[in-house]
Amino acid sequence: MRIGSIGEFGLIEKFKKNIFLGPEVVAGSGDDCAVLKFKPGLYQLFTCDMIVEGVDFLKDTRPELVGRKALAVSISDIAACGGVPKQAVVSFGMPKNTSLRRVELIAKGLFKTAREFGVSVVGGDISSSREIVIDVSMLGEVEKERLCLRGGAKAGDLVMVSGEFGGSIKGKHLNFTPRLKEARFLTRNFKIHAMIDVSDGLIQDLGHILEQSASGALIYEDLIPLSRDAAGIKDALCSGEEFELLFTASRAEAKKIIRDTRYHFRVIGQVMPREFGLKLVDRKYRYSRAAMKGFRHF
Amino acid sequence: MRIGSIGEFGLIEKFKKNIFLGPEVVAGSGDDCAVLKFKPGLYQLFTCDMIVEGVDFLKDTRPELVGRKALAVSISDIAACGGVPKQAVVSFGMPKNTSLRRVELIAKGLFKTAREFGVSVVGGDISSSREIVIDVSMLGEVEKERLCLRGGAKAGDLVMVSGEFGGSIKGKHLNFTPRLKEARFLTRNFKIHAMIDVSDGLIQDLGHILEQSASGALIYEDLIPLSRDAAGIKDALCSGEEFELLFTASRAEAKKIIRDTRYHFRVIGQVMPREFGLKLVDRKYRYSRAAMKGFRHF
Repeated sequence: MRIGSIGEFGLIEKFKKNIFLGPEVVAGSGDDCAVLKFKPGLYQLFTCDMIVEGVDFLKDTRPELVGRKALAVSISDIAACGGVPKQAVVSFGMPKNTSLRRVELIAKGLFKTAREFGVSVVGGDISSSREIVIDVSMLGEVEKERLCLRGGAKAGDLVMVSGEFGGSIKGKHLNFTPRLKEARFLTRNFKIHAMIDVSDGLIQDLGHILEQSASGALIYEDLIPLSRDAAGIKDALCSGEEFELLFTASRAEAKKIIRDTRYHFRVIGQVMPREFGLKLVDRKYRYSRAAMKGFRHF
Repeated sequence: MRIGSIGEFGLIEKFKKNIFLGPEVVAGSGDDCAVLKFKPGLYQLFTCDMIVEGVDFLKDTRPELVGRKALAVSISDIAACGGVPKQAVVSFGMPKNTSLRRVELIAKGLFKTAREFGVSVVGGDISSSREIVIDVSMLGEVEKERLCLRGGAKAGDLVMVSGEFGGSIKGKHLNFTPRLKEARFLTRNFKIHAMIDVSDGLIQDLGHILEQSASGALIYEDLIPLSRDAAGIKDALCSGEEFELLFTASRAEAKKIIRDTRYHFRVIGQVMPREFGLKLVDRKYRYSRAAMKGFRHF
């Protein structure tokens, strides 16, 4: 039996069994970040993301953007939990014949992004490997009352998003801005029930929220904001690495969020009881059951 | 210009320039772990280590040992700083055709080692890659007065080690036990000036201590404990991934350490003023200037 046949999520499920967790662990794997007891009033967030040449970027991708992406994906995870990124360590595997210029430009993009978001790069490891592999592990902090996890959605909540969806492969997956300001704005001013960043695809990541929240949802395709690069509504629903925020809040909170003009968020549907499942409504008011498509490594 | 021509350490030096560091960072890269302000009386330690198939283990290495090594190298880093490992996140890259059995056995070895050392594995990332790559980032804690860094060695200190050296490639590099108990014993009962775990090689890692401490040293080859697998004294001096402790303490403290029979440590030389450099004495009392050989990725 090969990895391909059980898939990434099956593998993660297998990994989760029989794991030792100390009493300081508030939430382990299954969310964008692990949540650890920390200082009074604060939790510490801990996350890691590996990017690989040929999968997450290509040989001819501008190296500064490779460095930027390596760091930005973890910042997006911290943001989705409502927190602020603080420190990172970077493991960097590369072939022996990699040009020094390329490595320096990757490092330049990485450190520039770190400075931009106030992240201290405090350590690293360098290794030889057959292709470029960069793994960033990041620590963050979040005020206890502002922590957002995937499991808090409630039937009746509205489902909301930042930004636009579709076609991230055309460029956004490399040069996106992690929605840190937007997430901090949300958790400072409103009560957010559940939040995630869209890395696997809008429908698949909504599925993660619904699974953890034991809920269903009804999504109106017409309400999903399409980016200029979107190939259509199906693309917007499935496109991975959009790194937009997907969250739920009560109807009353959602109204307040929409009235506030400082940042722009949109309602795309509603959380339903679990039995409802996840359904999409198209512009002709036809219902369909959503297939959980999105990016799969295996 | 290729990476190979400036080497791993030149690259790390380049990376260290112009880095943003927040006020909570007590020590950044350049030690076994980064040191961060934490709770009253405690520092938090943060480290990462990437292991790659074909470099750190082979295709036919027993998978449980691969998982064990992935975690154990970071535990060794935390131990060398005098601390206790606490939480880890694991990024796992592997080819699509990797057998599920192999992955499960790697995970088994990893989680067993985590349990053995009280490490909570709180998250991870799974990616496809051309060869198996495992990156573990680990958090630890250390009492402020027990923190050991590389920069504290003083002329007149004795240089001491745990265990035996040489030939780790024959097996020890995979099945070593991180010297956590020994390091905690040392920092609980004695004043250790500087400490490191031997990953690059005894002489090269001593070089790291001396560089950070602006000191020299005189090492007596005859005093270096040879393992059964050692090919000779030169091997013992250069063999990487021994994962033994290398530390310095004042002459008075060293005497106490040797008299204590609970754990066994040995004196191999003495810290000297910087101008002395690093010199070796062989059994015929001939001096030689040490060449800093050891494992290099590039």
